[in-house]
Amino acid sequence: MSNPLRVTVWNEFRHEKIDPKIAAVYPHGIHEAIAAYLREQPGLAVRTATLDEPEHGLTEEVLADTDVLTWWGHMAHEKVDDAVVDRVQRRVLAGVGLVVLHSGHYSKIFKRLMGTTCNLKWREAGEKSRLWVVEPGHPIAAGLGQYVEIEHEEMYGERFDIPAPDTLVFVSWFPGGEVFRGGCCWNRGSGRIFYFQPGHETYPTYYQPVVRQIIGNAVRWAAPTAGPRVVYGRSAPLEPLAAG
Amino acid sequence: MSNPLRVTVWNEFRHEKIDPKIAAVYPHGIHEAIAAYLREQPGLAVRTATLDEPEHGLTEEVLADTDVLTWWGHMAHEKVDDAVVDRVQRRVLAGVGLVVLHSGHYSKIFKRLMGTTCNLKWREAGEKSRLWVVEPGHPIAAGLGQYVEIEHEEMYGERFDIPAPDTLVFVSWFPGGEVFRGGCCWNRGSGRIFYFQPGHETYPTYYQPVVRQIIGNAVRWAAPTAGPRVVYGRSAPLEPLAAG
Amino acid sequence: MSNPLRVTVWNEFRHEKIDPKIAAVYPHGIHEAIAAYLREQPGLAVRTATLDEPEHGLTEEVLADTDVLTWWGHMAHEKVDDAVVDRVQRRVLAGVGLVVLHSGHYSKIFKRLMGTTCNLKWREAGEKSRLWVVEPGHPIAAGLGQYVEIEHEEMYGERFDIPAPDTLVFVSWFPGGEVFRGGCCWNRGSGRIFYFQPGHETYPTYYQPVVRQIIGNAVRWAAPTAGPRVVYGRSAPLEPLAAG
Amino acid sequence: MSNPLRVTVWNEFRHEKIDPKIAAVYPHGIHEAIAAYLREQPGLAVRTATLDEPEHGLTEEVLADTDVLTWWGHMAHEKVDDAVVDRVQRRVLAGVGLVVLHSGHYSKIFKRLMGTTCNLKWREAGEKSRLWVVEPGHPIAAGLGQYVEIEHEEMYGERFDIPAPDTLVFVSWFPGGEVFRGGCCWNRGSGRIFYFQPGHETYPTYYQPVVRQIIGNAVRWAAPTAGPRVVYGRSAPLEPLAAG
Repeated sequence: MSNPLRVTVWNEFRHEKIDPKIAAVYPHGIHEAIAAYLREQPGLAVRTATLDEPEHGLTEEVLADTDVLTWWGHMAHEKVDDAVVDRVQRRVLAGVGLVVLHSGHYSKIFKRLMGTTCNLKWREAGEKSRLWVVEPGHPIAAGLGQYVEIEHEEMYGERFDIPAPDTLVFVSWFPGGEVFRGGCCWNRGSGRIFYFQPGHETYPTYYQPVVRQIIGNAVRWAAPTAGPRVVYGRSAPLEPLAAG
Repeated sequence: MSNPLRVTVWNEFRHEKIDPKIAAVYPHGIHEAIAAYLREQPGLAVRTATLDEPEHGLTEEVLADTDVLTWWGHMAHEKVDDAVVDRVQRRVLAGVGLVVLHSGHYSKIFKRLMGTTCNLKWREAGEKSRLWVVEPGHPIAAGLGQYVEIEHEEMYGERFDIPAPDTLVFVSWFPGGEVFRGGCCWNRGSGRIFYFQPGHETYPTYYQPVVRQIIGNAVRWAAPTAGPRVVYGRSAPLEPLAAG
Repeated sequence: MSNPLRVTVWNEFRHEKIDPKIAAVYPHGIHEAIAAYLREQPGLAVRTATLDEPEHGLTEEVLADTDVLTWWGHMAHEKVDDAVVDRVQRRVLAGVGLVVLHSGHYSKIFKRLMGTTCNLKWREAGEKSRLWVVEPGHPIAAGLGQYVEIEHEEMYGERFDIPAPDTLVFVSWFPGGEVFRGGCCWNRGSGRIFYFQPGHETYPTYYQPVVRQIIGNAVRWAAPTAGPRVVYGRSAPLEPLAAG
Repeated sequence: MSNPLRVTVWNEFRHEKIDPKIAAVYPHGIHEAIAAYLREQPGLAVRTATLDEPEHGLTEEVLADTDVLTWWGHMAHEKVDDAVVDRVQRRVLAGVGLVVLHSGHYSKIFKRLMGTTCNLKWREAGEKSRLWVVEPGHPIAAGLGQYVEIEHEEMYGERFDIPAPDTLVFVSWFPGGEVFRGGCCWNRGSGRIFYFQPGHETYPTYYQPVVRQIIGNAVRWAAPTAGPRVVYGRSAPLEPLAAG
C-alpha cells in the first residue's frame, strides 16, 4: 500500500466568523466543507490551516508534511505574511501541488507564482455558471459530463490577467454575457498549480458533488512526483574541454 | 484492485529479420525487448503486434483492448496500411495513449497526428546521447537524475519539424554539436502522445534500465482517463433563446 | 518601400451560386466580400481563387506567389483534390500563412494540419456571437475593444477537437449557453495558422467592419518571415568526434 | 511615416567601472555597445539608463516614453529598488516589451514576472555557445542561419527554472555537455518578454553582428500593439439577467 497523499486545506476563515449569512452556509468554515469531502476519499490524509492560526497554520513543519495545498482567501489577502508567502512559493517550486480556489485568484501566493496582476471582471448576481470541459482527456475532467453547472455563482469574466495556462481545462459561461478561463493548469518549478473558478462564500458551492469531485481530481493531479534533484550554480564540465 | 493497463507494443520487426547484426542485438525483435520489461511491471497487461501480422496486428479488436500503444518503425513506414493508420488515429483521439519511439518520428501515424513533416537531422556515428530533464516535476521524469546518458546512439538534431510540444520534458545533447527536443508530450483529442528519441536498431538501447524506466513512466502517463463523452454536431440550446 | 504582402482569398463559392438567399447576401461570393476589404488596405496585393477553377485556383504558380492564404469552405470540402491539399500543406509548412474561416474548420487542409477531427457543436439559430479578447497584447487584437459582437451568427460550441492553440486570442459566448475557442493561433513548420469562428454564409458577417479588421490583422500577423533555410537528413558533425 | 519605436537600453554598468579587463571590452558600458547598434536601425529611437542614475534612470517619465526595455544586470541585482521593479512590472503588463539579456535571468524584474527562481547551471570557461533555431518561422529568427555560434561564452545549462516559454526559439549547445533554452518568449499581461542567453561581460558578444541582429529582431517583436483597454472589477451584465 502506498503512502497517503497529504493534503492541507487552507482557508482565510474570516467571512464565516463575521457574517451570519455566510456562517449559515459554512458553519465550520469553507475549509471544513472541502476537507470533509477529501477525508472520505481513499488515499488522502487531510489537515486544515487558517489565517488566524500562528504562521497561518503553514509552518515549515506543516509544509514539509504537505503534498498538495488548497487555497481559499478573499477579504484578507493582505493579512497573509510575506514570509509565509515566500515559504509556500519555495515549497510549490520544489514540487508541492497548489489548488487555488475562486477568490484565491487575488491571493499573494497566486499573484507571486503567476507574475501578473491576476485581475478579472466580477459581479455578484447569483448567476448560473456553466463550465465547459475543453480538454476531455485531462485527469481533472475524469468522471465528468461535457459541462458542469453551478446554479448560483459569482460571475468572473475575462480578461483574466494570467499567463496563458499550460493546459486550459474549463471555460466558463455566464448568462450575463461573459466567458472565463475557469479551470487552468500551470507547471511552476517542480510543482503543479490548478486554478478553479467556483466557490463564492455566499453559495453552497463546495457542497455540490461535482465541484467536490473536481477538487478531488485536482488534488490528485497536483500530487508531486519524485523527479530529479536539480543542482544549480557552478557546474563542472561533463565532457573534456579543449585547453583554453 | 484496479484493472491492469493494457499495453500493445508495436514493432515493424523487419531489420531484426534481415540483418544479422541487428538480430544479434534484438534476437526476438525490438518489441520483445520492450515488452519483456513492461511485463515485469505491476499493473500492466502487455501484448505485442508487428507489421507482418494480419492488419499489422492492430485489428479493431486489439485496439479496442488497448489503453496505450508504443510504436517503433523505420525501414517500412510506407508498408503500413492507411486504413490501419486511420484506425489508430481514431483510437488515439478517443483516448488511447501513444508512445512513439526513435525512428517512429517518421511513421505515418505520427506524421498524421502532428500535421507536419516530422523531419530532422540524423547521423549514425555511435555518439553519446545525453538527455537533460527540463521539466523535473513531470511524471515521465519520475525517478531519474538530472540527465540520462546513452553511450551509443544515432544523432537526431534540430530542426525537428513538429508542432511545439505541449510539454517539453527532455532536451538531448550530442558531441557532434547538435541538440534535439528528445522527449515531447502532446494532447490530441482525448489522447496523450509522447515522443522519445533513443532507440536506434543497432544499439542495445532498449535493454538499458533507465531507458526502460522512461518508457514505463511514459506508458503510465499516457493512460486514458474516463473523461466526458463528447457529442458533436447539431446541438439544442441549453438556455432559452429570444424569439428570432 | 517594401514589397506588398501577397494574399490569396480562397472560397468554395458554391452556396452563393445555388441558394438565392445566400446570393443576395454575397452576390459576388464570400471571397469578393473579403477581398474587397483587403484590397483597400495598404501594402496588400490580393487575388482570389475558388473551388471550380482549374486546380481550385491554387496552382503551384499561384501558391508560389502567395504569402498568406485565407480559406472558406463548407458544403464541398470533399471536392477539394488531395493533391491540392498536399500542396497547400507543403506551402504552409514552408512559411505561408493560413487564415481559416468559420466552416473551414472542417476543411481537408485544416484537419490535415491539425491532426485531429476538428469537430464541434453547432446550431443555426441566428444567435448573437460575442468574442472576448483573452490576449489583449496580441497583434490580431490590435484596435479592438474588449469584445466583438456579431448580431446573428451560427453557434459553434465546445468541445472543439483541435490541438490546444499555441495562443488563444478570442473566446466566444453564445446566448444558448455555449462557449467556443473562437480565435486560435498555431505555428506549424515555418507557417502560422489562425482560425476565426465567425462567418456563416447566410449572414453578412464579412461586411461587418470589425470582422474585416480582424481578418486584416490576422493576414498581417500570418505573414512569413525570412528565417533560416532548414536542411534535413544526414548531417556531418560540427564538432570533432572521438575516434569510434 | 509611423512613429519610431522607443527603446530604453538598461544596464547595471558596474563591472565596466571596476574591472579594467571588462572596461577594455566595453569601455562605454554594455549598454552603449547595444545602443550603438540599435541607433543605426531605421525606426528606432534609443536611450540608455543605468543603475546609478536617479531611480536607476527608469522614472515614470522615461517608462511612459518607452515601448521596449532591454535589461542587463549581474553583480548588483539586489541594488535595484523594489519600487522601480514594481514600476517596470506594471509597465510590462500594460504592454511594454522586455528583452532580458544573459545574467539578467537573475534580475528582480525577471524573477518577478516569471514567478520562479530563474536559477540555472553556469561555468566560466570561455566555451563555444551554439544556439540552434528550433522555430524557424519566428520573427526573432529572421535573417539567421540554422544556428548561431558565439566563440567564447559563459556556459548556461539546464535545468533553467522558468515557466515553460510560450515559444521556444533557440536551444543552446555547449561543448562541456550541457543544453539550455537560450531564447524564450513569454506573453505577460499585454506585454511580451524575450530572454536571450548570450552576453557574458568578459567577452565581446554584444559586438558580434548576429547577436546584435537577434537583439534588434527581439526589440521589434516585443513592440506593443494597441489592443483593447481592459477594464477590471465590478461589471454590469451585457445581457438581461432573469429576476433573482
